[in-house]
Amino acid sequence: MGTSLNRVEEEDYSSYTNSSDFISISLEDNNNTTKTATSTSKSSSELHPVCLPPHVTTWQKLNHRLREIFFPDDPLHIFKDQSWRRKLVLAFQYVFPILRWAPHYSLSLFRSDLIAGLTIASLAIPQVQSMHAFLFLLFFIIYSCFFFLFIQFFFLFWHLQGISYAKLANLQPIIGLYSSFVPPIVYSVLGSSRHIGIGPVSVASLVMGTMLDGEVSHSNKKDLYLELAFTSTLFAGLFQASLGIFRLGFIIDFLSKATLIGFMAGAAVIVSLQQLKGLLGITHFTSDMELIPVLESVFNSIKEWKWETIVMGFCFLIFLLVARFISTRKPRLFWVSAAAPLTSVILSSLLIFLLKSKLKHVSIIGHLPKGVNPTSENKLYFHGPHLQLAIKTGIITGILSLTEGIAVGRTFASLHNYQVDGNKEMIAIGFMNIVGCCFSCYVTTGSFSRSAVNYNAGAKTIFSNIVMAATVLVTLLFLMPLFHYTPDFVLAAIIITAVVGLVDYKAALRLWKLDKLDFVACCCSFFGVLFISVQIGLAIAVGVSVFKIILHVTRPNTVVLGNIPGTQIFRSLNHYENATRVPSFLILSIESPIFFANSLYLQERISRWVRGEENRIRENNESALKCVILDMTAVTAIDTSGIDAISELKKNMDKRSLQLALVNLVGTVMEKLHQSKTLDSFRSKGLYLTVGEAVDDLSSSWKHWP
Amino acid sequence: MGTSLNRVEEEDYSSYTNSSDFISISLEDNNNTTKTATSTSKSSSELHPVCLPPHVTTWQKLNHRLREIFFPDDPLHIFKDQSWRRKLVLAFQYVFPILRWAPHYSLSLFRSDLIAGLTIASLAIPQVQSMHAFLFLLFFIIYSCFFFLFIQFFFLFWHLQGISYAKLANLQPIIGLYSSFVPPIVYSVLGSSRHIGIGPVSVASLVMGTMLDGEVSHSNKKDLYLELAFTSTLFAGLFQASLGIFRLGFIIDFLSKATLIGFMAGAAVIVSLQQLKGLLGITHFTSDMELIPVLESVFNSIKEWKWETIVMGFCFLIFLLVARFISTRKPRLFWVSAAAPLTSVILSSLLIFLLKSKLKHVSIIGHLPKGVNPTSENKLYFHGPHLQLAIKTGIITGILSLTEGIAVGRTFASLHNYQVDGNKEMIAIGFMNIVGCCFSCYVTTGSFSRSAVNYNAGAKTIFSNIVMAATVLVTLLFLMPLFHYTPDFVLAAIIITAVVGLVDYKAALRLWKLDKLDFVACCCSFFGVLFISVQIGLAIAVGVSVFKIILHVTRPNTVVLGNIPGTQIFRSLNHYENATRVPSFLILSIESPIFFANSLYLQERISRWVRGEENRIRENNESALKCVILDMTAVTAIDTSGIDAISELKKNMDKRSLQLALVNLVGTVMEKLHQSKTLDSFRSKGLYLTVGEAVDDLSSSWKHWP
Repeated sequence: MGTSLNRVEEEDYSSYTNSSDFISISLEDNNNTTKTATSTSKSSSELHPVCLPPHVTTWQKLNHRLREIFFPDDPLHIFKDQSWRRKLVLAFQYVFPILRWAPHYSLSLFRSDLIAGLTIASLAIPQVQSMHAFLFLLFFIIYSCFFFLFIQFFFLFWHLQGISYAKLANLQPIIGLYSSFVPPIVYSVLGSSRHIGIGPVSVASLVMGTMLDGEVSHSNKKDLYLELAFTSTLFAGLFQASLGIFRLGFIIDFLSKATLIGFMAGAAVIVSLQQLKGLLGITHFTSDMELIPVLESVFNSIKEWKWETIVMGFCFLIFLLVARFISTRKPRLFWVSAAAPLTSVILSSLLIFLLKSKLKHVSIIGHLPKGVNPTSENKLYFHGPHLQLAIKTGIITGILSLTEGIAVGRTFASLHNYQVDGNKEMIAIGFMNIVGCCFSCYVTTGSFSRSAVNYNAGAKTIFSNIVMAATVLVTLLFLMPLFHYTPDFVLAAIIITAVVGLVDYKAALRLWKLDKLDFVACCCSFFGVLFISVQIGLAIAVGVSVFKIILHVTRPNTVVLGNIPGTQIFRSLNHYENATRVPSFLILSIESPIFFANSLYLQERISRWVRGEENRIRENNESALKCVILDMTAVTAIDTSGIDAISELKKNMDKRSLQLALVNLVGTVMEKLHQSKTLDSFRSKGLYLTVGEAVDDLSSSWKHWP
Repeated sequence: MGTSLNRVEEEDYSSYTNSSDFISISLEDNNNTTKTATSTSKSSSELHPVCLPPHVTTWQKLNHRLREIFFPDDPLHIFKDQSWRRKLVLAFQYVFPILRWAPHYSLSLFRSDLIAGLTIASLAIPQVQSMHAFLFLLFFIIYSCFFFLFIQFFFLFWHLQGISYAKLANLQPIIGLYSSFVPPIVYSVLGSSRHIGIGPVSVASLVMGTMLDGEVSHSNKKDLYLELAFTSTLFAGLFQASLGIFRLGFIIDFLSKATLIGFMAGAAVIVSLQQLKGLLGITHFTSDMELIPVLESVFNSIKEWKWETIVMGFCFLIFLLVARFISTRKPRLFWVSAAAPLTSVILSSLLIFLLKSKLKHVSIIGHLPKGVNPTSENKLYFHGPHLQLAIKTGIITGILSLTEGIAVGRTFASLHNYQVDGNKEMIAIGFMNIVGCCFSCYVTTGSFSRSAVNYNAGAKTIFSNIVMAATVLVTLLFLMPLFHYTPDFVLAAIIITAVVGLVDYKAALRLWKLDKLDFVACCCSFFGVLFISVQIGLAIAVGVSVFKIILHVTRPNTVVLGNIPGTQIFRSLNHYENATRVPSFLILSIESPIFFANSLYLQERISRWVRGEENRIRENNESALKCVILDMTAVTAIDTSGIDAISELKKNMDKRSLQLALVNLVGTVMEKLHQSKTLDSFRSKGLYLTVGEAVDDLSSSWKHWP
């Protein structure tokens, strides 16, 4: 007795150890490349055969997979079926999109740009809007003459932005202007977006300022700091361009919108608080970027507060905020908020200039060097202890500025129904930064605010960026002294007004309403940036976003399906109240691929469903459960753990004397189950095309074999 | 002209900026809790209404979600509908599973255990198998008398394992024996698996040895090293228990089988190479665990090699490997490999004892202290520079040993069709280690090899572990001198033979055949462990596994569906060759939830499908494309980016004058689209229950309105 028992268990054990080949009945034609009709029983006339997908070699699969990963947009489709000559032209146009539109650049397009320029200029003189046509004509002529002067004023707004953002990055204001000259020219040759406005952006400036200043003080080691900034720009450019070249653009998709909303808001709060330095006239201020040290610094230096600065600063801040408020309430008055910064700069500069004897303590921008960008390729920092910092800063600012740039490009492209190739944009932005860092520019990208103004001013092509570069040139050559008396507090007020718009509480509310986990990701990035640090906040937010995906896969839904009376349709009992259970059947829909992360969960969950169903049947005295049907429509992939789970489940159901049927296996899943021989145990009455056919066939077979 | 153009674009821009509320027609009954029948047109008699799922509050959703995450197995279901007295009993049984089986522990079960013990003992005398029943009876009586002696010999094998594994962890051999005494007793009270064998395991020992030795040398700072080992054990226990208590058990699912296959193989190679120290008789050896330094160390110390050790060591190694080979070829002869280590220890110890004057250079275990486990709670290390190391080591060894323990428990539970609650097992294993670290034990868990022998020897309950503890007690009290002359090389040979089994190349081949990405994960962990380090190797492998999930979600399949003639069934054109395209329709099935990580990709991919279809139609002169149907069955979740993608897609299709219809929206997806008002634009001819109904209804509507 002892030995026989032992023998049985031994075999049990051996079958366990070779569990991979426990299904030894293999298909007769294992290697056929055409489809194998593994039809189930034909007892029911309506039954349709379930077949294997056509054979695809590993190489073909890999090829397909790689194409989908790296070339999802099929960028070479324009070259198909073209003569080699046309292909060459197309290739040149592909690399330099300027060649695509420049030959067709007509007078009408130029007039469009001109009108756009005039419009934006005329917006500064509101009366024009109510004038009659003939008066407009008059103005048209006058404006045409003063075109460059007017456009100059418009673009001054952008210059101000450049100057302000440079200050965010702890760089001299002139670097901000330099960064608005070279990069737009490079972009207009390489880039494919038509409405984008190129320049420094707040988030990237802020992150660069924080990260570099944490290791190298911008006030004590000015030269080293500058070198690191240019080097970071180089690495940002290299990183961006290589992302594009290796077609890894999808990486930026992981900075989800929810994450960015929280990140931007957190960054905006920090930046605004940092601006209290200028607004309160404090001279000694922390370079930390977290909430606590900044607030401490503000209140510890209460003795340094200067009332003149505070009064004037807050006046201009209120003025700017009111202008902003008007523009957001009435989008047609967007020019109010566009003109306000320039107005305040002119007013405040005049004020300081006129009262300079009385307002000595107010800190001003001071002397700015005249002249175009000096070259800076000799200022790049390749050896030494801070190289790692420069690389890290480059990568983080690079990815952040890419996110903004690509989003802007895509937004305006979708408004005008043209395509922007994300990976090519990355190359363009990357090259722009690589070239830029050799001409005293720091990280630039497509800026959301600039592009919106550009688009609204009627820009039709990227030519507007060249116009901008030209006006910057004029500014650099002649107009620099204008900024001498511009006080710091007005720049602080401009920055605060600009970043306040980044706090998009409406979007956050929408997240809360629609998707709680997105809201959590948003909050994580917000509080992470506020209380820990910019990098860590961002990392946490990306982590939460990825965790969300993982969570969905780890704990997928399993739904009990019921029949919608009078049809062959089976839908969730929870969702459709008219759906009814089919006696003797438990029909489950598995709503996720089966992976290692959920294979055990699904096994246990399905067992629990069966247990629950049996209890329910016992309580209600219904006919006993005979069959479990798994609707595999949403099981779009399976891995080896999943395959094991299916065969375990089959064994488990066999032990409970329940039939297990799989319905609507997707191609790849079917193939893998076939290759692993798991499918063999489902050959007879186990594979169906639809739930309806499974139910019909199985219940009719029970009638024949009661 | 200029102003009008401007005005149009302004409105365009303003509608863009408020894109979240661009669908302003809201449902009349927004807050109704019953289902809203938002039926599409009733033109076709067969059409079935699409309805919203019943309203569920956020709190209910959160509750459901949390229950699925933390209590997927519904552990409290046994308490349902019971009297409070019964509940109390059940609760006690729940906490101490021993109470469940101990009251029913019958003589027959004990006989079963006895027979198991006798069987395993009799296996050492192969003739028994061919004996007649009456002879067996004779033996039965004799064996019963000598029961403890025989079982003692059997368990010596386990002791040897304990000793060998302690050496892997760079601990004194006696710690290995101590670890086989206290933990099994604790587990048998708390644990719910019946066939598990508790003891130290190779992987956890190895990782502990590597991690601790990297910072504190086990040869120079023996006491500190020992303290750190006990402290790590404490933290491992705390970590395991808290994972169980907080029901975070699913974390170990992320160590997928594929990862573990590679990890084990890599660890086995490293361990085997490390054993060359004992096998070649080297005295100075590296404590590094990577391939390169170990090989360097072996060949740099070529002068230290001792030929006597080498000859004897390799003889025993070959003997052990042959025994192993026999057992794997004929699973019924598993006792050969179980008895071989003991035989070699006895033989080699005798050899050394007899030739001790001639074999002075051969290193032996030496003196082992007699007596039961000394307490060690005063040896725990809570202050000082190495605390972090202890915590890190504890967590990593804890998670690794958990993985093995839970896998073993589940495997044998599924063989005997009983449930093992993963989270409760974690608590049991955790407590076992917490108690253990106070009694000079290091990390223990359910060991695969021990459990297999235990199961094969016929164990019916966890009582076998108490028997084992008792025999260890006997060993500790009386038999320690037996090990005095055991040479190190035989331990090295035993370890190599044990870990060779961890290189499961067949499983790796199966991975290659079935799932290339699983194979990549396996390779990553193998080479990571081999060339970088144990922790990093493991981290890389987990990273690759998670990346696999992310990749699947980032680049989901989109499949074109066709009609299977004569039915209302729509299946992939690629998969089913008899499926045919429906003229004027493009039917796409999206095989993934729509998340931030794929929302842009899906938008572009669907546009590309439409472009491709339009090209195909143009080439073949077919009837023009009029409608795109998205089968959303596999879109089991959606987030805010996904919602935006759907409404972008709708706008995009409207611009191309194509109709867009969504089919079979899953409950949660439908609810979110409804809440975000995206569904409003699909109300008319945009929502269907099945693809068939969508095709019928839309094409019939075109006939009426040509």
